[in-house]
Amino acid sequence: MESYEELLYRLKDIELVGQIGSLLSWDQEVLMPPNAAPLRAEQLAWISKTAHERLTDPKIGILLDEVGSRGNLGEVELANLRLARQSYERATKLPTEFVEEMAKHRSKSLISWTEAREKDDFSIFREDLSVSIDHARRKADFLGYEELRYDALLDLYESGLTVDTLDPLFSGLRDKVAPLIKAVSEEASRPDLSWVEDNSWSQESQEALSQIISEAIGFNFSSGRRDRSTHPFCGGPNPDDVRWTTRYNESEPFGSLFGSMHETGHGTYEQGRPRNLDFQPAGKANGLGVHESQSRLWENQVGRSRAFCDWSLSIWKEYFPENMSGVDSEQLWRAVNLVEPGLIRVDADEATYNLHIMIRYEIEKQLISGEIEVDELPDLWDSMYEEFLGIKSPNSSKGVLQDIHWSMGAIGYFPTYTLGNLYAAQLLEAAKKELPNYEDQIRSGDFQPLLNWMRKNVHSRGSVLEPAALIEEATGSPPSPDAFVDYLSSKVERLYEVTA
Amino acid sequence: MESYEELLYRLKDIELVGQIGSLLSWDQEVLMPPNAAPLRAEQLAWISKTAHERLTDPKIGILLDEVGSRGNLGEVELANLRLARQSYERATKLPTEFVEEMAKHRSKSLISWTEAREKDDFSIFREDLSVSIDHARRKADFLGYEELRYDALLDLYESGLTVDTLDPLFSGLRDKVAPLIKAVSEEASRPDLSWVEDNSWSQESQEALSQIISEAIGFNFSSGRRDRSTHPFCGGPNPDDVRWTTRYNESEPFGSLFGSMHETGHGTYEQGRPRNLDFQPAGKANGLGVHESQSRLWENQVGRSRAFCDWSLSIWKEYFPENMSGVDSEQLWRAVNLVEPGLIRVDADEATYNLHIMIRYEIEKQLISGEIEVDELPDLWDSMYEEFLGIKSPNSSKGVLQDIHWSMGAIGYFPTYTLGNLYAAQLLEAAKKELPNYEDQIRSGDFQPLLNWMRKNVHSRGSVLEPAALIEEATGSPPSPDAFVDYLSSKVERLYEVTA
Repeated sequence: MESYEELLYRLKDIELVGQIGSLLSWDQEVLMPPNAAPLRAEQLAWISKTAHERLTDPKIGILLDEVGSRGNLGEVELANLRLARQSYERATKLPTEFVEEMAKHRSKSLISWTEAREKDDFSIFREDLSVSIDHARRKADFLGYEELRYDALLDLYESGLTVDTLDPLFSGLRDKVAPLIKAVSEEASRPDLSWVEDNSWSQESQEALSQIISEAIGFNFSSGRRDRSTHPFCGGPNPDDVRWTTRYNESEPFGSLFGSMHETGHGTYEQGRPRNLDFQPAGKANGLGVHESQSRLWENQVGRSRAFCDWSLSIWKEYFPENMSGVDSEQLWRAVNLVEPGLIRVDADEATYNLHIMIRYEIEKQLISGEIEVDELPDLWDSMYEEFLGIKSPNSSKGVLQDIHWSMGAIGYFPTYTLGNLYAAQLLEAAKKELPNYEDQIRSGDFQPLLNWMRKNVHSRGSVLEPAALIEEATGSPPSPDAFVDYLSSKVERLYEVTA
Repeated sequence: MESYEELLYRLKDIELVGQIGSLLSWDQEVLMPPNAAPLRAEQLAWISKTAHERLTDPKIGILLDEVGSRGNLGEVELANLRLARQSYERATKLPTEFVEEMAKHRSKSLISWTEAREKDDFSIFREDLSVSIDHARRKADFLGYEELRYDALLDLYESGLTVDTLDPLFSGLRDKVAPLIKAVSEEASRPDLSWVEDNSWSQESQEALSQIISEAIGFNFSSGRRDRSTHPFCGGPNPDDVRWTTRYNESEPFGSLFGSMHETGHGTYEQGRPRNLDFQPAGKANGLGVHESQSRLWENQVGRSRAFCDWSLSIWKEYFPENMSGVDSEQLWRAVNLVEPGLIRVDADEATYNLHIMIRYEIEKQLISGEIEVDELPDLWDSMYEEFLGIKSPNSSKGVLQDIHWSMGAIGYFPTYTLGNLYAAQLLEAAKKELPNYEDQIRSGDFQPLLNWMRKNVHSRGSVLEPAALIEEATGSPPSPDAFVDYLSSKVERLYEVTA
């Protein structure tokens, strides 16, 4: 198996470059001094160039063909071959000049988007967005697709994902969740949040809470770190060095805690990767949707459950004795589960979040297919927000300009957020069947059984399977919106006594 | 000038690899989670291998010959050529197997040294040290030398340094400083340090002091950072991202403050490099001796001066109001200038420090020449400490086993510490001639004129000249012990009213 070993040797080399780049990026976000930005950009460009050179070495293509022509490949070998070929093809199918053109445009577009958002003027960004859409179409043509151009873009972020598989998921959500939210908005009364809103929440105590709960879930701080950054994220170079961040707002404590649980979910996934496959593509965490399932699991499915509130109440009371005086776990549970349609995706609650994504998905599909033009975008955005969330943005900064993704050319990315929510519900439903005492475990702060289930059924499987196949293997069913819809409906009914 | 430009292009590539490696090393020392060590080692090994491959590319040799064969090279071009050739030759003259053998032995030797030190048993380290001495000799033979093998090793740490130039410097010190210390030990009385020793010094206040004084000296925190680490150092990837560390001990406050001033000196040097020569060898900070001159300047020449104590007293009182109550600047000055022979080099005061180095220098010379054998080392060490410092170590942990350097094969390194002290005194003497109000400036906390002098005469000259030539250009005289001896004699006379 000489070719296979040489292939692995070269993939390890490329992976090491990537690990080093991850550390540079983490440092840039978290603690690099401001004047260091230009030279850091040179270092990161060197990393990209070096990784790209090594990945597109024609020898890789030869090795892929040699390995592929043999029979007798096991599950892991097949996965390594599939993933290495995918990376190689993505890197070689796009002409160098086109990649450079996109990179240059991305820098320009990020600037016009920032200015447009500041000045609340879509027309400043209009032309650059139009070019980005054109780039996305050309990129899809270079990469190739079977049915729709947009499928080629979806596949970049979640391997094998297509409109054919996504449409039924989103229509399931639209049909069930939108009416539920409408019912809450029209019929339910808002819980009393004065104990949250009228208090100040010290950063020091928020940090303690963040740390304690992340440790309780099972994040290993001997193989990782918690830091502060403007934009929370989970990064770091490898499973022994996983670094997540959060941010603190002293006027409310939930952002940092649920943000911490979210990143802890990503972090435990990275720490749980199959270590016998270090440096191999099959050993990496799976697509963005599966990654997001792990963050959403701990943030929402666990963190916003009644049982978790029962357990965590005493910790809240320990670190915020005055603010939490007289607050019971029912009140805590209602506060962390406020359902309220809003304009901003990143601030959205668990019930409304996927409608924000659905709107973006529908718009991306139509932009790429040419059904709509960039000029029609702001009006379409507003009318969809009115239709599905019952609200309208007073300006484009809080509307169509709110997200960075399109300015970076990341078209096809948004749906993975919703996949994460659906997978999380589906995985937990499956896990509960094997964990009969699940509620009691959560209520007593024993998260090990659930984490172990994820370790066994998700984390340790790395990227051996494609994402949809992994979900089916772990849960017994292909990806579906049902578990999420059931979960959300019953929760909203308990919270607000409404039904859709 | 095509070959020259291609050479610079390749040198930039190598320098970028080095910058990335520096960040990885900094992170490893300062905040990497413990379990990440093995994979970080793989990343650093990748960095070394990649840099070595690119540096030893035969094309570099061809370019060096092409550039060297032209006339009309300016000062900077000549320096780049000289330094690039030096790196290339050092990297290519040593056979790969020999480099690997040394690297393997270094890991082994570090372990036996650690064990020997813990168990206070030189015999555990004896054999590995003997092999290291043999490696050092063979390394010198591969690299080549004119007079003495040891010269080839000295040259690795301070370009152009030889025993011929070092011997007179050390004999100047031995003849003048050793009797001075003898006089202090025999005739002077120890100042009252109860106000230091009987108090606790909060880390928080030490941190504030460290930050304020580093900023006052002129370290730019928009282009650098201060952190905490077990072993203080100054690192970071480039002049826009200079990172120094210190450590805190609540039983005494001087270690962190003078350590901070020391690293600030290294840091201001890095920040003052000639930025038009970014990525060029000529734009890098000069040899270890010159680097150490900048740290020692601020730590000792400035930091332990009476004028600096006059200025800093009010800051001390602000952050340690109780501990410093009733302490005047005379007492502060006497406390920070305690002269007391001790066994441990890193704890040594300004007067005795160079005798520790002189002993190591004499021993290294004799070990490399074969005048003494490793077995004779412990006795020789003890007898020299008795002769020059008047004390004898009760065990080898505090004696011959105290330093890490020999366990890492770093033979020829120690003398650069003393060079730093001599250069610092010589540079300050020259600076004062152009700064007639120097004392008043320090007394009022105006460090800009001195820093500017160093910027102009040292920092901005990068590595355009060899170290000794740089000192001569800046001060008008070749390196000499005179300025340091004058400085130390007059200070010790004022402190202890003794003369040698």
